Amino acid sequence: MTTYRTVRGMRDFLPADLAKRRFVEEKVRECFNFYGYDEVETPILESFDLISAKAGDEIRHRMYAFKDLGGRMIALRPEITPSIARVVANKLRTEVKPLKLGYIANCFRYDNPQMGRYREFWQAGFELFGSSHPVADAEVLAVNNELMRRLGFTDFSIKIGHVAILRQVFTDEGVAEADQNRLMELMDKQEHTKAYHLLSDLKVSDDCQATMKGLFKLRGTDWKNLLEKGRQLLQQKEGALAALDNLEAIIGFTRSLGVKTELFMDLGFARGLEYYTGMIFEVFVPGLGIALGGGGRYDHLVELFGGEPLPAVGCAPGIDRIALALEKKGLFPDQLTHVEKVLVVSIQKELLPKALELASNLRKQGVAAHNEVTGRSVGSALSYAGKKNYRYAVLVGSTELERQCVILRDMKAEAQREVPITNLFNEIAFR
Amino acid sequence: MTTYRTVRGMRDFLPADLAKRRFVEEKVRECFNFYGYDEVETPILESFDLISAKAGDEIRHRMYAFKDLGGRMIALRPEITPSIARVVANKLRTEVKPLKLGYIANCFRYDNPQMGRYREFWQAGFELFGSSHPVADAEVLAVNNELMRRLGFTDFSIKIGHVAILRQVFTDEGVAEADQNRLMELMDKQEHTKAYHLLSDLKVSDDCQATMKGLFKLRGTDWKNLLEKGRQLLQQKEGALAALDNLEAIIGFTRSLGVKTELFMDLGFARGLEYYTGMIFEVFVPGLGIALGGGGRYDHLVELFGGEPLPAVGCAPGIDRIALALEKKGLFPDQLTHVEKVLVVSIQKELLPKALELASNLRKQGVAAHNEVTGRSVGSALSYAGKKNYRYAVLVGSTELERQCVILRDMKAEAQREVPITNLFNEIAFR
Repeated sequence: MTTYRTVRGMRDFLPADLAKRRFVEEKVRECFNFYGYDEVETPILESFDLISAKAGDEIRHRMYAFKDLGGRMIALRPEITPSIARVVANKLRTEVKPLKLGYIANCFRYDNPQMGRYREFWQAGFELFGSSHPVADAEVLAVNNELMRRLGFTDFSIKIGHVAILRQVFTDEGVAEADQNRLMELMDKQEHTKAYHLLSDLKVSDDCQATMKGLFKLRGTDWKNLLEKGRQLLQQKEGALAALDNLEAIIGFTRSLGVKTELFMDLGFARGLEYYTGMIFEVFVPGLGIALGGGGRYDHLVELFGGEPLPAVGCAPGIDRIALALEKKGLFPDQLTHVEKVLVVSIQKELLPKALELASNLRKQGVAAHNEVTGRSVGSALSYAGKKNYRYAVLVGSTELERQCVILRDMKAEAQREVPITNLFNEIAFR
Repeated sequence: MTTYRTVRGMRDFLPADLAKRRFVEEKVRECFNFYGYDEVETPILESFDLISAKAGDEIRHRMYAFKDLGGRMIALRPEITPSIARVVANKLRTEVKPLKLGYIANCFRYDNPQMGRYREFWQAGFELFGSSHPVADAEVLAVNNELMRRLGFTDFSIKIGHVAILRQVFTDEGVAEADQNRLMELMDKQEHTKAYHLLSDLKVSDDCQATMKGLFKLRGTDWKNLLEKGRQLLQQKEGALAALDNLEAIIGFTRSLGVKTELFMDLGFARGLEYYTGMIFEVFVPGLGIALGGGGRYDHLVELFGGEPLPAVGCAPGIDRIALALEKKGLFPDQLTHVEKVLVVSIQKELLPKALELASNLRKQGVAAHNEVTGRSVGSALSYAGKKNYRYAVLVGSTELERQCVILRDMKAEAQREVPITNLFNEIAFR
């Protein structure tokens, strides 16, 4: 007999695990909806052209790409950003701005499966298109902050940086964009020494090298002081100073928005994607080595995908990672897996219709009353009710029925008593 | 500039359309959860072996199948049943029975796109494993009935049949299973004449031919009378009579379960899949030519996918088709697209932090207060609030602020007045 298995790197979500993922998804959706971000959904299959247009090599070599029966080269999306940019550039081009969109979606990458990493993974996101004002950046941070609180995290921090500071320093020095991207990539990987070497190879001025080294050191939670030090370091560098002012304004607005979370500022911080043009951030909880999500400003995103220029700031909370963190910290609520419910069983076979009717009436009143559907003995049915965590069993028997009563069994207390049918709902309605 | 498009046959769900799909999904989930069906989710990518094992030619030739980077032949699921059978046969093998599972999932088929038909479509389902008792069949019908009511349909009917009646007649006559499948396929396509010809070619007895012709005529809403006629037609045919009794028992139990919906009985009714072994059904609303969903009993399903024998009955409500029907009948609730909300705008730039703070406080009290995030003029912000259907705008200006007040503008009435900040929540809290 053949045994069929899941494809390597894929997951079956059984009820307990799925309930957890749905809990996270629901919190994310609730949260971005509350702030006015409308949910959209794009297809899993996209044209290879779209997906590969701006993808880094890391993604490009790990795509599920193939030809469909019509000969089109298509791919399972490895990320959502290109799809959202496509929709904004085309179908939502004429919508009033700002445009605030949210999404929750699965993506596919042929990565090496390992603990907590799968080839199909869930990603949420929300993006604000049409504002370059720092309050827009602050709002995205505030929604992330509220999401973490709503999920039940009390102890988390936000790492914040700004790619335009260093990019402006490089641009002023005449460093080509491709070289800037290489530098950013090294920074993203925390390979500062390699970044120094690359900068030497590029033969930039001593002043520029010193500025970069200086910025790399500006890391910590005392962001007011770090901003002040940054300002000293960047004297005369107008573009970089403007970026620093932008970062300060963003932080100020997050405070007006009620964000009290600790900020870890890092002026040498970069994120993988080349899209970013301004503020960037990542969200961390202690004891988990990876960011639960992150984002930033990418003002050229829509243009990159064929749209008209439109400033944008957004983020991507990782559903899988958040679920992992909630699990590790024991923050999933108990009710996810414990639903109060009632199993209705007939003692005599001929009373089955009466039992069905009783269950149906309870359901009409909103009680999750389930029917015993196998025709097995009362003992087997009760044993099932115990294993499945039923709160009550209702036994419908001829003796009690003559008195218009049924037996109500409390499965936890393992006690039972006779109850008039007319009182049944009140006896088991859950307060 | 490149314009990227969706791949042919795929859909973008923009906010209004997605809200509708989510409404349907939520009703389905709510409904099967209430009856004790636990949600599971299986991966979109499955092994080609699993997917093609029992698929009919129609599905097999329309699959998105390809080799992954590891050389595995994989496919995007064209239906969910094999995946659910795989999970039940393996991971849930030792679970207590009955096992009640539900799911909501997207599937992929390379069909010709046309009005309302796409290459990515949404399918729900719920299945009851581990009971061959007719009350299990009745429960699946009852959940479908409740789902239709919860969705808002008042005028719908359930078409019901039983494949074991005719199959038993054929089996008694010595018709091979492959030929039976061909006959069932013709019946499914309503090609009765071709079925008669095939039966003649198979050289079955006149009695058998007469029985089939007789059963084909037993169609209508007067199911008690039709069952009686069926009984006369099937005299002496014990197997077929037992199937007829089973159908009668199922219908009886649906009545105990409170199902009052009109049943259209059709004893010559068959459904596409060869899996079916007993009762089958489809749900219809008037004026829509297609079934919104359907299902039946398939007692060998789990075995077919490598599991131990386990009776099963289930169904598959079509999410896309239900949405289409709700749309056509105008049954989607208004609130899906009209959320009451408040836009908070600062009149003077320097009051932006104060406006952010006010909005943040309203949110803490549960009001969907949104920030104006672009820095534009008050006039532009109000025009935006109008276009986006905001219920209120709150204007924060220095004159009113001196009196601890703000301006509350009713966007529908186009009227505004001064309101003390301390009263703001009570003035706009939605009752």
